Amino acid sequence: MTQAWWRDACQPLDNAAMDQARARQQQLTKPAGSLGQLEGLAIQLAGLQGRERPSLEQLAITLFAGDHGVVEEGISAYPQAVTGQMLRNFVGGGAAISVLARQLQASLEVIDLGTIDPHLQLPGVRHLRLGTGTANFARQPAMTEGQLQAALQAGRDSALRAAEQGAQLFIGGEMGIGNTTAAAALASVLLGCPAIELSGPGTGLDDAGVRHKAEVIERALRLHDLRAEAPLQALGCVGGFEIAALAGAYLGCAQAGIAVLVDGFICSVAALLAVRLNPQCRAWLLFAHQGAEPGHKTVLAALQAEPLLALGLRLGEGSGAALAVPLLRLACALHGQMATFAEAAVADRPA
Amino acid sequence: MTQAWWRDACQPLDNAAMDQARARQQQLTKPAGSLGQLEGLAIQLAGLQGRERPSLEQLAITLFAGDHGVVEEGISAYPQAVTGQMLRNFVGGGAAISVLARQLQASLEVIDLGTIDPHLQLPGVRHLRLGTGTANFARQPAMTEGQLQAALQAGRDSALRAAEQGAQLFIGGEMGIGNTTAAAALASVLLGCPAIELSGPGTGLDDAGVRHKAEVIERALRLHDLRAEAPLQALGCVGGFEIAALAGAYLGCAQAGIAVLVDGFICSVAALLAVRLNPQCRAWLLFAHQGAEPGHKTVLAALQAEPLLALGLRLGEGSGAALAVPLLRLACALHGQMATFAEAAVADRPA
Repeated sequence: MTQAWWRDACQPLDNAAMDQARARQQQLTKPAGSLGQLEGLAIQLAGLQGRERPSLEQLAITLFAGDHGVVEEGISAYPQAVTGQMLRNFVGGGAAISVLARQLQASLEVIDLGTIDPHLQLPGVRHLRLGTGTANFARQPAMTEGQLQAALQAGRDSALRAAEQGAQLFIGGEMGIGNTTAAAALASVLLGCPAIELSGPGTGLDDAGVRHKAEVIERALRLHDLRAEAPLQALGCVGGFEIAALAGAYLGCAQAGIAVLVDGFICSVAALLAVRLNPQCRAWLLFAHQGAEPGHKTVLAALQAEPLLALGLRLGEGSGAALAVPLLRLACALHGQMATFAEAAVADRPA
Repeated sequence: MTQAWWRDACQPLDNAAMDQARARQQQLTKPAGSLGQLEGLAIQLAGLQGRERPSLEQLAITLFAGDHGVVEEGISAYPQAVTGQMLRNFVGGGAAISVLARQLQASLEVIDLGTIDPHLQLPGVRHLRLGTGTANFARQPAMTEGQLQAALQAGRDSALRAAEQGAQLFIGGEMGIGNTTAAAALASVLLGCPAIELSGPGTGLDDAGVRHKAEVIERALRLHDLRAEAPLQALGCVGGFEIAALAGAYLGCAQAGIAVLVDGFICSVAALLAVRLNPQCRAWLLFAHQGAEPGHKTVLAALQAEPLLALGLRLGEGSGAALAVPLLRLACALHGQMATFAEAAVADRPA
């Protein structure tokens, strides 16, 4: 039997380029360390791109959408039909991520992994239709083995397309009414943490709604008897199509050598899953922001992530990651274009 | 006797435009509140610009530089000559703010308010030369009354020039070896707070250096007998040319109707001073980031500011504010370009 593709080696970091970038940072006309997190970012990107002065012009955004059977348990403030309606909005240019992709000159790919409407046919959307949403994981596994494999592969394929088009940065976004419930369930298994600590209002539940959501998750976890040591089984039982695709995309990017900017709570859970499936991919993941969903902080801490923004965002779609892109680009511009003390004839501090 | 110019009325906010913007935010295709701080920003900018859909294309950056006599007390890690050397770097394009201004398509004005070299003559720099730096405020008032008035007016003039060129956003930057000491002294008076709580490493002091810096400030405050109720006297006695100019610029912008994005610790102290001189100006001030200088948090709290970034920056030059500009621009783009629920035929949540 062949090894599963996601265990294949990720691209190594270029240590020589990182050393050069680190040395350059010390020579730029500013007090050492005064650009804070942006200095480490420039050095990390140098290692990922294998050159002293990295750049991030080519940005690929892929949006993964899927519906969730668990919505029938009453865990979302919005009706499930919104997932398909928003697919139309993504390609129509009116959604937040559509506006951001235009502003950032990014490509935007929209993938329908399976919504409740099996006949949905929208120009500009890739309809993969793995099912009419997942099954209700409070009663049965969310996905079949075949659906799980196909969703992971769909993400990997998007990473390969991004590589073909020369992307230097990949953002995965998600849309799926009910998907904070699936993400919280998955994180609960992977972190061995009570569901109530990872359950939040999502698109707008009140306190009673959040408690009910946590109860639905706890019930499902007892039903499926999941373990952190079997992340793939957890993904299949309580995950979602778009969460699996995100994990597949992150792993594919790390194998293809494309830096990833991870969005909010759901994407961070997908990132945690990817790291559990292949720890090498962690080096390729940058974290954009800490969102409003209370469980996000816990997941970021488990990943030892240092997010760039904390603006109280809770929209998803990859929007928080897109908002952080200018910071990465400016970190590269500062690193690449600032004068050194010698070039500018400025006195460095006495040694 | 005529009233001092800074007490003149600031431009009022347009409440009708803010109401329209608030109503629009509720109709955009996203869960209400899901864009976090960016929603309030778009609404505030609508009020400042007097239109439902604000924009921030025209950005003016002015860099104010000045030397500080108090450096002779040994409170900085860098020699005073660096202020003049950095002026050359600003116009030469190699400094952080030069790179950022280019990337953001902003105008960059560089003003020499008075460095230790009275013969410094650099193409592209406005040399106002109010003195060869301030006097050592540990021994005597930093500025004469005439210098203080001229520095405030220099800031106001830069705001007027920004208004003439149609600026929609103003960033003031500062450069001056020793200026975290002046800013900490000034904040100490205005907030009635011990100097040690507002003194930090600046460009790179060690712990003993920070303690010495706080002692120098405490000694100066005893010498001058300053009171929070007399902010102008405090500014003249322990401030700096560039701090006075920043306060003048902020007040001038609020009177001319230009939104201001405030940079780090020194700029925030100048903003606090401006608000004490004319509280109306507060509405025109946006705060870009919380920097690494420990006193910054205290000053921001006193201003009830909600900074956008916290990246551990401590460079000055307006660089932290420049880094936050794309967030403001994207907030405007999202607000102006996203589709409404009705336009996109997306179901809003049940009422």
